[in-house]
Amino acid sequence: MNTPTLESSLAEIVGAKNILTESEDIIPYSFDGTAAIKRLPRAIVFPSDAQQISEILKLARSQTPPVPVVTRGSGTGLSGGSVPVEGALVVCLTKMNRVLELDTANLTLLAEAGAVTQEIYDAADKAGLFYPPDPGSMRVSTIGGNVAENAGGLRGLKYGVTRNYVMGMEVVLADGSVCWLGNKCVKDVAGYNLRDLFIGSEGTLGIITKVLLKLLPKPAARQTLLATYAQMDAAAATVSDIIASKIIPCTLEFLDRKTIRCVEDFAHAGLPLDAEAVLLIESDGHAAAVADEAAQIEEIARKHGATSVRRARDSAEAAQLATARRSAFSALARLRPTTILEDATVPRSELAHMVRFVEGVATRHALDIATFGHFGDGNLHPTILTDERNTDEMHRVEAAMREIFDEALRVGGTITGEHGVGLAKKKFLPAQLGDASYTLLKNIKRALDPDGLLNPGKIFD
Amino acid sequence: MNTPTLESSLAEIVGAKNILTESEDIIPYSFDGTAAIKRLPRAIVFPSDAQQISEILKLARSQTPPVPVVTRGSGTGLSGGSVPVEGALVVCLTKMNRVLELDTANLTLLAEAGAVTQEIYDAADKAGLFYPPDPGSMRVSTIGGNVAENAGGLRGLKYGVTRNYVMGMEVVLADGSVCWLGNKCVKDVAGYNLRDLFIGSEGTLGIITKVLLKLLPKPAARQTLLATYAQMDAAAATVSDIIASKIIPCTLEFLDRKTIRCVEDFAHAGLPLDAEAVLLIESDGHAAAVADEAAQIEEIARKHGATSVRRARDSAEAAQLATARRSAFSALARLRPTTILEDATVPRSELAHMVRFVEGVATRHALDIATFGHFGDGNLHPTILTDERNTDEMHRVEAAMREIFDEALRVGGTITGEHGVGLAKKKFLPAQLGDASYTLLKNIKRALDPDGLLNPGKIFD
Repeated sequence: MNTPTLESSLAEIVGAKNILTESEDIIPYSFDGTAAIKRLPRAIVFPSDAQQISEILKLARSQTPPVPVVTRGSGTGLSGGSVPVEGALVVCLTKMNRVLELDTANLTLLAEAGAVTQEIYDAADKAGLFYPPDPGSMRVSTIGGNVAENAGGLRGLKYGVTRNYVMGMEVVLADGSVCWLGNKCVKDVAGYNLRDLFIGSEGTLGIITKVLLKLLPKPAARQTLLATYAQMDAAAATVSDIIASKIIPCTLEFLDRKTIRCVEDFAHAGLPLDAEAVLLIESDGHAAAVADEAAQIEEIARKHGATSVRRARDSAEAAQLATARRSAFSALARLRPTTILEDATVPRSELAHMVRFVEGVATRHALDIATFGHFGDGNLHPTILTDERNTDEMHRVEAAMREIFDEALRVGGTITGEHGVGLAKKKFLPAQLGDASYTLLKNIKRALDPDGLLNPGKIFD
Repeated sequence: MNTPTLESSLAEIVGAKNILTESEDIIPYSFDGTAAIKRLPRAIVFPSDAQQISEILKLARSQTPPVPVVTRGSGTGLSGGSVPVEGALVVCLTKMNRVLELDTANLTLLAEAGAVTQEIYDAADKAGLFYPPDPGSMRVSTIGGNVAENAGGLRGLKYGVTRNYVMGMEVVLADGSVCWLGNKCVKDVAGYNLRDLFIGSEGTLGIITKVLLKLLPKPAARQTLLATYAQMDAAAATVSDIIASKIIPCTLEFLDRKTIRCVEDFAHAGLPLDAEAVLLIESDGHAAAVADEAAQIEEIARKHGATSVRRARDSAEAAQLATARRSAFSALARLRPTTILEDATVPRSELAHMVRFVEGVATRHALDIATFGHFGDGNLHPTILTDERNTDEMHRVEAAMREIFDEALRVGGTITGEHGVGLAKKKFLPAQLGDASYTLLKNIKRALDPDGLLNPGKIFD
C-alpha cells in the first residue's frame, strides 16, 4: 500500500472536487487585491465546515516539515494578508457562504465566513434592519475576510467598523480545536475577550468559520450632500468644524482634484472638474434630525467657502454620488499599470496637515499620488499611481511610503486604518508599536500558533 | 548592612507615606463590593505613575517566592476581582486620579486609571460632550476598574459598555514593561487588538495605568418614561415589541414587585406600590426623534396593558426616576445582612422566561430573591437577600445560583453580563466556555503572566 500524498489525504477530507492542484488552477490564488505581490501555493482546498478545517489543520501540521496554511475568501485584501506563502496550502472559504439565521428578536445575523458582505447587508435590509460596515469591496468580499482584517468603510465615523458588529464567532485554532467565542448577549464579561483578539488578526491566529453579527434598526431617513471647494484647506476646516459642532455624520468623504477628474471621467456623476476638493457627506437617522443636520452641515460648508453645496434630491442621485466615491479606486487604477492604495490614518485634527504632507511627498519624489478617503475618520487613501516594472520609480515609491508612514506616526496616527498589515506593511509595524507592544504581539502569536502554521510571515516574521 | 525588607524597598519606590502595612490600615483593603469574601493582604502601595508600578512588579517578582500583586481602585467590584490573595501586595491606583486631557477636536479624554468615573462624565459634560457608560457605582468607581471589568450600566442598550469607549491605554505588563495600546485614530488595524484583550481582563494580564476614552456629542434632548404593569409578562412583551419596532432606547430598565417596594421605601420616588413590574425607559437624541420615540414607546406599553405610563415632566422628575432605579441595590441591601447581586444575562428574547425561572428558583429553595436590571440588554440582576452566617441558607443560595447560571447558559446567555468572573464565579466559567475556549484563556494568561504574579486565582485557578 502506498503512503497517501498530502493531496490525496486532503481529497479524502473535502472531496476530490473541492481541491485544486494543477498550476493553471492555482495561479488565480497566488495574489489578492494588493499590488505587486504574488506567491504560488501548493494546493487550494474548499472546505464545507469547521470540522473539515480542523482535519485539514491537523493534516498540515503532521507533514514533515509542516505545511503552512493560508486562509482566504474572495481575495480582495489590500495588504497581502491572503497572499499565500510559497508552497502553502490555501484554505478558501467561498463555499461556506450561507446566511444561517436572521434573529429579528435579538437583532443578530449568523453567517458562514464565506458569505458575501453585500448579501448580509441585503438580508438585513429586507428585514428592515441594517448592517453598517461597508468596505469598498463589499459586493465581492466575504464576511470572514472583513472580520479577519477588521474592515472599515464609508460609515465608520458614525457607525464604527466591522469589529463593532461582531458579537461572536466560531474559530478553528492552530491545533485543530474548534471554539465558539461570544454569544447573542448584548453584555458578556465572562473571561477574556478573545473574540476581539481574532478580529483583525489577519488569519494568523485561527480560521474564522462562522460569524454572529449585530444589526441595527434601519435609519428612517438619509440625506447626501456634495460640497465643492477651491482649496483643500477649506474642506479640511469644514470637517473640523462639523465635528466641533457636535455633529457626527454617517459619512464624511474626501476626494482631491486628481481623484475628482479621474472619477468623473469614469463614472460621470456630475462632479465639478474645476474643484480642488469635494466632500461627500451623508446624514442619516430620524427625518427631522437629518433635515436639521443637513442644514447645519450646509451652513458650515458655506461658512468655510464651499463654492457649491449640492443636496441629492432623491435616493437615485444620492446613490450616484456614493457610487462616484466608491469607484475612486477603480477609476484611478486605470491610469497606470500599478496602483498602490495606502491607508495611513491620523487623528482628525491632523487631516489638513497630512493631506498637504502627502502632496509634498509626491512633489519631492516626482510621483503621481491621488488622495481620497474617509476624512471624518482621519483615514486617508493616498493612492500611488506607478509601474512595478520601473525599478527606479519603485524605489521612490518605497521612500515616499516610508515618509508618509513616519509622518502619520509622528502626529499620533497609524500605518493602516482599515487594510491591515499583512505582507505589505510588516516592516513598518515595529516603529508604530514600540518594543514592548511588538514583543507582546509576537508572544500572543507564539501562544496561539506555536508552530507558526497559520499564515506565516504576515504581520511580522 | 541589613538586607532591605520588601516593605522598605517599596517605600523607596513610592515614598514612605504611600505604603500601608499596619493591620488596622490594611483591613479596609481586604474586601470589595462582593458579599462574603475577605482576604488580608500584606501591604498596600499607592503609586503615582506607570514607572513606579513597573518597579513594584519587578520587586514583587524578585522575592522568594514571588509576592502576588493585586490591583484595585475604589473596590466597588461585585465579583471579588480586587479582593487580595492572602499575603498579596495591593497596588491601589486612587492617587493616580487626574483627567489629563480633553481633546475637543478629536473627541477624546485621557485620564489616569484612578480617576473617578463621575469626574470623567462631568469633565466631558462641561465641554458639551458625553461619556455614556454609567455603571451603578460611577460616583465612586475608578475608570481603571471600569476598564479592567468592562463595566456596563444603564445606557448599554443604545450606547454599549465601557469597551466601546476605550481607544487606548497605557498598561504595565507582568515583566514590568510599559506599553501603549491604541491611539486617537478612529480606525487602526496595525497588529493584533491587544487593547480589547486587556479590557475586561480583571487585573490578571497587566495593570492599566492610563485610559484614552472616546466621547460623543451630548444628546440634545431626553425623555424619561415609567410604565407600570400588573403582570411581569406584559412588561417583558413591551420590551420585545419595542425592539421589534426597531426602537433602541437609551435605557430600558426593569424592577420587580419586591424591588419596587423596597426602592420606594428608601428613595420615595413615587413608584406604584401595587405594581408587579415597572419599566423605566429613556429615549435621547434629537428633540423630534425623542418625541416620536417616546410617543411610540407609550403606545406600545399601553398596547401591552401597562396600567399607567408616566412621562417625566422635567429633568428633575427624570432624575428622580433614574435615582430610584439607581438606588435598587442600596435599598435591597438594607433588608438582610448579606446581599448577593447576580448578573446572569440572556439574549433579549429569553427575558420573560428567565425572570419566571428566577421566581421559580426562589420558591423552590425558599429564598428571598428580588430581580431588577437592564431589561433592554437581557442583563438581569437577581438579588439574593440572605445571611452569610446561616450555613444552611448559604447552601441553598449556592444551589440557586447554579440553577440560574445553568439556565442562562442553556438559553444562550452568560454567567456575567457586567460584573466579571473574579473569585465569585470562576467555578461556573468552564461550563460557559467549553474546553477549547477555556484552554485558550489559560494559554493567554500563561503567555502574558508566566509566573502568575498578577491577581492570581481570579477568573480561573
